[in-house]
Amino acid sequence: MKTISIVGTGLIGGSAALDLRKAGNVRELIGVDQNPEHAARAVELGLVDRILPLQEAAAVSDVLLVAIPVSAIQKLLPSLLDMLPPQAVVIDLGSTKSLLCEAVRQHPNRAQFVAAHPIAGTEYSGPTAALEGLYQGKMNIICEKELSSEHALHTAQEVFSTLGLKTIYMQPEEHDKHVAYVSHLSHVSSFLLGLTVLDVEKDERNIFTLAGSGFASTVRLAKSSPDMWAPIFEQNAHFLSHALAEYIKHLQRFQECLQSGQTQELYQMMQQANQIRPVLDGIAQVSPVVK
Amino acid sequence: MKTISIVGTGLIGGSAALDLRKAGNVRELIGVDQNPEHAARAVELGLVDRILPLQEAAAVSDVLLVAIPVSAIQKLLPSLLDMLPPQAVVIDLGSTKSLLCEAVRQHPNRAQFVAAHPIAGTEYSGPTAALEGLYQGKMNIICEKELSSEHALHTAQEVFSTLGLKTIYMQPEEHDKHVAYVSHLSHVSSFLLGLTVLDVEKDERNIFTLAGSGFASTVRLAKSSPDMWAPIFEQNAHFLSHALAEYIKHLQRFQECLQSGQTQELYQMMQQANQIRPVLDGIAQVSPVVK
Repeated sequence: MKTISIVGTGLIGGSAALDLRKAGNVRELIGVDQNPEHAARAVELGLVDRILPLQEAAAVSDVLLVAIPVSAIQKLLPSLLDMLPPQAVVIDLGSTKSLLCEAVRQHPNRAQFVAAHPIAGTEYSGPTAALEGLYQGKMNIICEKELSSEHALHTAQEVFSTLGLKTIYMQPEEHDKHVAYVSHLSHVSSFLLGLTVLDVEKDERNIFTLAGSGFASTVRLAKSSPDMWAPIFEQNAHFLSHALAEYIKHLQRFQECLQSGQTQELYQMMQQANQIRPVLDGIAQVSPVVK
Repeated sequence: MKTISIVGTGLIGGSAALDLRKAGNVRELIGVDQNPEHAARAVELGLVDRILPLQEAAAVSDVLLVAIPVSAIQKLLPSLLDMLPPQAVVIDLGSTKSLLCEAVRQHPNRAQFVAAHPIAGTEYSGPTAALEGLYQGKMNIICEKELSSEHALHTAQEVFSTLGLKTIYMQPEEHDKHVAYVSHLSHVSSFLLGLTVLDVEKDERNIFTLAGSGFASTVRLAKSSPDMWAPIFEQNAHFLSHALAEYIKHLQRFQECLQSGQTQELYQMMQQANQIRPVLDGIAQVSPVVK
């Protein structure tokens, strides 16, 4: 039986709390949250049993799951490792890994830390967005595994199996490069599509009368929280900027073909894009659509 | 009791056929399809009762619903109106309207034609993609209403109410401009996102291991049929190219901010994009997600 602290009681931390409690081998779930409203809501919703300041939570916890914006993780990690009792384990669930790993690479307590990223989420945020089963069947990436102690890795693996996550290992740079393409770029494309259409709508009444489920699907991620995503984009600026340049290049090529009437070329680009089908069928298998 | 021909027995025509039959006031549903496999499949699936060549179908039908690629509609419409008996009505369901309306604007039988666009669909195509209830609660646009006869409009309205569509009226150019932003641009952004990520994947093994439901949602439309979409993009090149230019401009601005570390600016862009939330909530109400 473990005492587990959830640092950041939002969608990511709150969803983990729900499934850890459901699995039944938790002594106590402690919430840590700077936002008093979120803290109160997390207790009210039964995500955590009580709220403690970080230092007190660290003193009594076997595991601390850190699920706050990545800029805040970067600042918090060194001081959290400073105050950590010897047997406690810190696991971060942030969507970037290079800067977070770098922030504690030389820390004397680095071995007590596991750098992780479960690939799961929705466009909603805060304690009320917490969902049972969010992590079930999803992928999880642990970075710089070799810098974590056996005990820390074993503890983290217990938590991740309880959540139903399937863990693979990568180096932080490799992780950040890949997620720039398959996660961060989708978010940028969606945010900017939303913004583009909203800008046009200022001059054109009722444009949204014509929006259907295709538009809704493509622009869904534009509902995501800037508090969470601005720091992710900032931390992954190098790889994301590269991905964005590739995307813009493809869009410009498409626009050229469109303007010069090269329909055959457009057709071929779409046909190539269709090869995403088996990939999406694979994702559908591991990641049932979350409401 | 009416005899209705479905010209093009794919997702759009086939779905209409399913609901028209279910409503029960159809004497016979006739399929017209150039593709013999689709034609056979449409009969097998019970979408239509039998297959006829276009000329024979036109001779015996009260209504012909035309649901083929827009380039094919443009070619077909004049000759279809040529061969049409006086009481028959032709309704097209194409996703562009300017060129289609122009193709028959001066035709002596123009009054027998209704130019329509029901805002509904999925990323799948062909007779097997036909879905009951696809149109239920969705929007439908009729263009150049003033050029259709009372009889044609009344007949079309009967069909559209049976399908559960809510009809509004627009001029073709206004229609094409609006759908460029809220439908065609989403498709382009999705096709090109898919292509960009597939291109990177050639050099990077296992990139898709990290793709989650957010990526799947944003790139879903990249599964759409090039046979259907290349002609739509071609016919709406003017407005779509303009929409694409706006989108690229927004992406470039975002990339600049990313590269120069203007996180506050990125934050504001995302916050503005968040204003899409009430719009999407509105779409969710009229358009339940189709599996």
